Amino acid sequence: MEKILELIRKQRPNHQRELSDYLTLPSISSRSDQKEVMMQTAEMTRSMMVKSGLDDAAVYETPGHPVVMGSNRKKIEAPTLLIYGHYDVQPVDPLDEWETPPFQPDIRNNRLFARGSTDDKGQVHAHLKALEAIFSHTGELPLNVVVLVEGEEEIGSPNLVPFLNEHRDALNADLAVVSDTFMWAEGQPAIVCGLRGLLVMEISVTGPNRDLHSGFYGGAVANPIEILARMLAQVKDDNGRILIPGFLDSVTPLTEMERNQIAEIPFDEQEFLSGLSVEKGWGDPDFSILEKLWARPTFEINGLWGGFIDEGVKTVLPAKANAKITMRLVPDQNPQQIADAVSHFFHSIAPASVTVETKRISGGGPGIVIPTDTPAMLAASHALEATFGKRPYFSREGVSIPVVNDFREVLGIETLLIGLGLPDARPHSPNENLHLPTYHLGIEAMVRLYHQLATL
Amino acid sequence: MEKILELIRKQRPNHQRELSDYLTLPSISSRSDQKEVMMQTAEMTRSMMVKSGLDDAAVYETPGHPVVMGSNRKKIEAPTLLIYGHYDVQPVDPLDEWETPPFQPDIRNNRLFARGSTDDKGQVHAHLKALEAIFSHTGELPLNVVVLVEGEEEIGSPNLVPFLNEHRDALNADLAVVSDTFMWAEGQPAIVCGLRGLLVMEISVTGPNRDLHSGFYGGAVANPIEILARMLAQVKDDNGRILIPGFLDSVTPLTEMERNQIAEIPFDEQEFLSGLSVEKGWGDPDFSILEKLWARPTFEINGLWGGFIDEGVKTVLPAKANAKITMRLVPDQNPQQIADAVSHFFHSIAPASVTVETKRISGGGPGIVIPTDTPAMLAASHALEATFGKRPYFSREGVSIPVVNDFREVLGIETLLIGLGLPDARPHSPNENLHLPTYHLGIEAMVRLYHQLATL
Repeated sequence: MEKILELIRKQRPNHQRELSDYLTLPSISSRSDQKEVMMQTAEMTRSMMVKSGLDDAAVYETPGHPVVMGSNRKKIEAPTLLIYGHYDVQPVDPLDEWETPPFQPDIRNNRLFARGSTDDKGQVHAHLKALEAIFSHTGELPLNVVVLVEGEEEIGSPNLVPFLNEHRDALNADLAVVSDTFMWAEGQPAIVCGLRGLLVMEISVTGPNRDLHSGFYGGAVANPIEILARMLAQVKDDNGRILIPGFLDSVTPLTEMERNQIAEIPFDEQEFLSGLSVEKGWGDPDFSILEKLWARPTFEINGLWGGFIDEGVKTVLPAKANAKITMRLVPDQNPQQIADAVSHFFHSIAPASVTVETKRISGGGPGIVIPTDTPAMLAASHALEATFGKRPYFSREGVSIPVVNDFREVLGIETLLIGLGLPDARPHSPNENLHLPTYHLGIEAMVRLYHQLATL
Repeated sequence: MEKILELIRKQRPNHQRELSDYLTLPSISSRSDQKEVMMQTAEMTRSMMVKSGLDDAAVYETPGHPVVMGSNRKKIEAPTLLIYGHYDVQPVDPLDEWETPPFQPDIRNNRLFARGSTDDKGQVHAHLKALEAIFSHTGELPLNVVVLVEGEEEIGSPNLVPFLNEHRDALNADLAVVSDTFMWAEGQPAIVCGLRGLLVMEISVTGPNRDLHSGFYGGAVANPIEILARMLAQVKDDNGRILIPGFLDSVTPLTEMERNQIAEIPFDEQEFLSGLSVEKGWGDPDFSILEKLWARPTFEINGLWGGFIDEGVKTVLPAKANAKITMRLVPDQNPQQIADAVSHFFHSIAPASVTVETKRISGGGPGIVIPTDTPAMLAASHALEATFGKRPYFSREGVSIPVVNDFREVLGIETLLIGLGLPDARPHSPNENLHLPTYHLGIEAMVRLYHQLATL
């Protein structure tokens, strides 16, 4: 294996060059006029797969952007690893905040600046280069591999689950690995072992049958904005603890080990808050900020509107007010049960003066915790420690990575979330970048990971 | 006087014809391209004044639309009456909801349909025809009269107070009469004796220094929309009674007589609510709906917005939330003191997790009660009763009529608010109309009013 690693180190200039080519392709999935460039990017992904020994690699049409899939299943005795990533990227607005154009990769301070450099082309590329290094050196791979790279992750993967179902046999695997998350810091790897789920709802309050003049009607007729505000104010106590009956009942308490795992991660709460120009935090005081962000559910108002919101004054008592709500869920909160509890709560506290409607918006799913004491986790931990010189943190993320749930539900497998992004990689923002030393070491880490997993 | 009234009855067709001509002029004050038609309307107003015996009637330029003023001050011993109205009208959108074009007056069911028919050209016209009838019959007027008809009422009279100040001598009077309000019902006259004032504020809550991803930050950082909702929920108790310290302190309680005056006006609360499709009212249960609408202050959220309010889902924890608030004030609430109390209240309850800003928006003024036991009120009451056969109600309105306050403050006089509009006259809306029998009787009522006031 040392030889393979040496080979990889020698190939660094070539790797950077090829990745830069990959990054010049503006594969923005949300733009419908990008069909051609999406196909071009899928094709390039396919040809890199072939070079990695996945000789059946092919581009699969979907109702949206194509999926690229390839495999090498020559090690009958060894386990099978599903490597997932995506070749599509986020839009680039605001363009004028980019120091160099988003699709003209530029290297400054050991970083490769380009849209998609970290999210996710650079991390897909690291896996393919790891496979290629092993395959070109030894003529085979240490375990069975199937690589799946989709083109619609940034728009919610609308065609992924159907694809998984349709190609269930081809995707048959023991474990998945996804590299679309973050290191804790430069030199400090992390494996994500917890994700919060998502529940999306809208709440509307209707009062009178039309907008009223607040002078002629104000004081005698309930104002839907006011009632909505009053109801939303009852969702939490003064400390931000959620009061909706049933909301917290099924939350699996953090174990002693989980709290310790979180506590051992260095995190400066004051620095976190002052980075946001916020004097004081919010939320249940029984939990640390990381616990709140990673392992506690939320009820968040993403948008609220009602009445006259343009410039100037309009003395209206509006007919309606609306709120967009998302809730982050944790194990074992069942999204539908929580939606029902929220709906019941709002209807139960609504005064007779108004009509309340609640609606669950489709999408989202449950929160997930990935066990950290499995052989696969241990293997990943060893591979990362051997490469970066530090034992990885078992971190969590406050957001969902829906593919983890999809793999669980459709393919019945767990996912290793091993990210190569640095915290300041700025995915989704101007000046997205990839820290090149981490990327190069990442390729080596993947070589070690595959070998480790092969022995399980 | 009977002769004069007879004359008026004979002239009805002519009055209708002349008023229809007046209403064909599209004198929409909010449209800046209407300079010529505004001048044309002012000119027509002036020539009608001259016919009424106001031989010095003239059109006065202002920085906006012109004012028309004329007087007849030949009765040295008699009091002077200032008659105010406006020749400008509201815009006509939505045009397709008009059954006949807004500036092609059409008579259906005893009603003259046209923009401005009730608000306020028809009522201005009634006064001028009353003066003209007296003047043409007797060659003189029973009291001193100055008539002021402005062209900017519908856009907030931005040039009226300067005009009042500049022409204070010409406008010197003992009493004003304004006909820009409503009868209680067909055949049931009303004199408005109370108006609520207006205080306009904006409240904003700022949390983090930028919009945050609710997945990465939600649960640990206060959401400004939530905090704004929580603060607004503290403004009133569960019955809608305002809790802001100091807000209600200076409210002059309704006297026994005032409550009786309001109570004797027939008003079906259930009908009022069901007309709005509202099951239950709102607000301090110690007061009837009319008392709440006319004589109690309000705190009304006219608009509230924050976060993502477009179609779709965005999991944002926004940096800011805002509310537009208007308060209706009653005597003796001082607008600045109330603004200070509101501002202090919101700052005092704001959690340390956010920054709150409150801002008073200019405009508005105090609430007003016009004494109902004065000789002028009695005179007006008699004139209306003699004409319509019913004693007028002393009603109030929930809104301000700023000119009443302007006359008080600049000219030092009280105002009689005698309206000829019927409740379904639809001012500001499509199919505005004037009930012609009421208009014709209104002219007679004004003749009686002038004679009554002449004797004071």
